[in-house]
Amino acid sequence: MPKLVDHEARRRELAQAVWRVVQRDGVERASVRAVAAESGWSAGALRHYFPTQDALLHFAMDLAAEKFTERARALDEHGVPPQEHSAPWRVRRLLTTLLPLDADSKVSAEVWMAFVTRARVDPVLRAAGRKGDELIAEWLLDRLRDAAEEGILRTGADPVREALRLLALTDGLALHGLITPEAMPPELMVQLLEDHLREVFPGRDLST
Amino acid sequence: MPKLVDHEARRRELAQAVWRVVQRDGVERASVRAVAAESGWSAGALRHYFPTQDALLHFAMDLAAEKFTERARALDEHGVPPQEHSAPWRVRRLLTTLLPLDADSKVSAEVWMAFVTRARVDPVLRAAGRKGDELIAEWLLDRLRDAAEEGILRTGADPVREALRLLALTDGLALHGLITPEAMPPELMVQLLEDHLREVFPGRDLST
Repeated sequence: MPKLVDHEARRRELAQAVWRVVQRDGVERASVRAVAAESGWSAGALRHYFPTQDALLHFAMDLAAEKFTERARALDEHGVPPQEHSAPWRVRRLLTTLLPLDADSKVSAEVWMAFVTRARVDPVLRAAGRKGDELIAEWLLDRLRDAAEEGILRTGADPVREALRLLALTDGLALHGLITPEAMPPELMVQLLEDHLREVFPGRDLST
Repeated sequence: MPKLVDHEARRRELAQAVWRVVQRDGVERASVRAVAAESGWSAGALRHYFPTQDALLHFAMDLAAEKFTERARALDEHGVPPQEHSAPWRVRRLLTTLLPLDADSKVSAEVWMAFVTRARVDPVLRAAGRKGDELIAEWLLDRLRDAAEEGILRTGADPVREALRLLALTDGLALHGLITPEAMPPELMVQLLEDHLREVFPGRDLST
């Protein structure tokens, strides 16, 4: 029988090693060598996946995007899918998914910050990062437009400007939560985001 | 007569060279060698000021803080000092001073972003950066408490939470303005900040 290599399984195995290395050492120190030590693979085998340090960062960014999508689409605690909830609930779910609230989302936020920093001087990385940002911005704008049509958006609010402000606020909270976690712990990030959402959707319950 | 060296003048001369290099090449590529070429100083003379690359970043951060303070304290277009204005005007002035709206404030924002990224793995840089952040946060909180006493803060608003949200929003806007200036141009940053300030200080004129 021919020897079959399950590429998807190998990729998943590697992904977990990359994630553990970033979580333990920080993305700045996540080298091909560290991933080799963590995964038990040879540096040579890893070169196939990561010819450069940027390729490793790119791989980590793809993982962060996958984990983000997984968390954003997860069923609620009663097994109900997000799209059966109200616009305010869905917006709250999506934006809290961007915050560094637990171990996994902290790694995601750290990878994102390293990525945007590097992307400023690297057009290829920048194009890849923009794609994800634009998808999130469009999704959010659709929800706010739905809310405006339903009459649950604050009177006189412009969905485009509300969406941009919400994303800037969320990224600012994530930045503070990442840089000064002692001054901006997870509960405070969520509280400040909810303060804002209650003004965007006056009198609406964010929890259903 | 003994040979006197005007250290302050030399420092200013050097500061201008550092600023031009960051503006032209980005902070990532602002090396001691590039500053030497720009200033006409020898690399050896520069080692006195910048023994390491981090010392160069530290110097640039001090410059950014000086320029920020200068802009924040500048008289208005009628020659009136900021402290004779209303709390809403002063808050608007301070926060727009943090945004990358022109060449100088773009360099400041870029240096700040490089600094906070590096500070995550460097306790000395982190302590220096925290100091500035804390001063701004305290100043803002004082203005919001004044506004609450005057009865011009939105009814029921908590000055502490409003201050933290405003700073997160401002840093998020600055981040977007820096990373994706085509999607977040200066006018839009200011507009979104003003949208927010009009909700913090309902019915107040931000321009006087």
